[in-house]
Amino acid sequence: MTVETRHIELETTGNAEIVDITGYITDELHQIGLTRGVVTVFVPGATGALTTVEYEPGLIEDLGELWEKIIPSTKTYHHDRTWGDGNGHSHLRASLLGPSLAIPFADGDLTLGTWQQIIFVDFDVRARNRDIVLQFIGE
Amino acid sequence: MTVETRHIELETTGNAEIVDITGYITDELHQIGLTRGVVTVFVPGATGALTTVEYEPGLIEDLGELWEKIIPSTKTYHHDRTWGDGNGHSHLRASLLGPSLAIPFADGDLTLGTWQQIIFVDFDVRARNRDIVLQFIGE
Amino acid sequence: MTVETRHIELETTGNAEIVDITGYITDELHQIGLTRGVVTVFVPGATGALTTVEYEPGLIEDLGELWEKIIPSTKTYHHDRTWGDGNGHSHLRASLLGPSLAIPFADGDLTLGTWQQIIFVDFDVRARNRDIVLQFIGE
Repeated sequence: MTVETRHIELETTGNAEIVDITGYITDELHQIGLTRGVVTVFVPGATGALTTVEYEPGLIEDLGELWEKIIPSTKTYHHDRTWGDGNGHSHLRASLLGPSLAIPFADGDLTLGTWQQIIFVDFDVRARNRDIVLQFIGE
Repeated sequence: MTVETRHIELETTGNAEIVDITGYITDELHQIGLTRGVVTVFVPGATGALTTVEYEPGLIEDLGELWEKIIPSTKTYHHDRTWGDGNGHSHLRASLLGPSLAIPFADGDLTLGTWQQIIFVDFDVRARNRDIVLQFIGE
Repeated sequence: MTVETRHIELETTGNAEIVDITGYITDELHQIGLTRGVVTVFVPGATGALTTVEYEPGLIEDLGELWEKIIPSTKTYHHDRTWGDGNGHSHLRASLLGPSLAIPFADGDLTLGTWQQIIFVDFDVRARNRDIVLQFIGE
């Protein structure tokens, strides 16, 4: 059993931008060469989040509309009054979707479905350099 | 420390069907015989998801109504226009609830509350054979 | 590689009360002295949940309003008819936000962002004594 820490560095534009990070995680797993275990994917920061989805243009558009419906960017939030940075909706969306994901791997590969990709969603309102932590535990 | 991979096979009918999978996971843990660690429960596939709930008929009905309110099955989504399989709402619901759950165990048992069950929700619109991955890490 | 189980004991008032539990988890990690691994944070019980957020008064108020909008406490749920304890909304909110969080640590510290705190949300409708499980796996 061993622990291996890796990082994904992304340049994002924000506003609920969705980035497919599956390839980065698979590549790191293959380079490390672990066979069985779990990778914990984690976003340091309170305006980004993770989930899985079938990554295709129609759904990407649906996800944007869903977030706008549940937590509109056009509303003024108490957080905006505190800081004046206008990203109250970004914080609320990220806290609802969640910053971490635990994904098993077996036989040297992630146990994802065929049409299932791991996505990072940048809910912030400006371009950012993002760091995503990958913690592999296994053998 | 060891890693043990197990699978739960389910025949589901979909349409936000909720399956209590607590017993399957507890049984596997007892058979493996690990004392302390974490089990990662994961759904391979983009139209199923996991959470915990008090599994009783009233709440099961409430959960169905909640999903119908937040992400209606009656709306047409961009995803439906792409594939024509009419399950855009299934994908959105699953991505919001999330495909993975990490649950500690100690003294040989899951650390669940007394009225807390682990549920798999099949949001797809048709009957399916489902595989759920259990990755036990512990000692 | 080792597993260390710890518990956080909280007295909460409920009604979507938000408790910043970051300090408790960091303190336990430092006392255990592990360098690299993952801590799984888990709520035993179906009316509490976990996520991360920038813990500041404006956002705390926004979160309360968000939950009231998505899953109102003023509505009567089927669960309330079953048990008569009036916390149907508590159960629905907790199942949507989720009971578990997996957070990597490296160089002896959690990999949180600078303005990112781990919060426990007590959605129940009465004061409670809460137990939160911390499962540290690492080396």
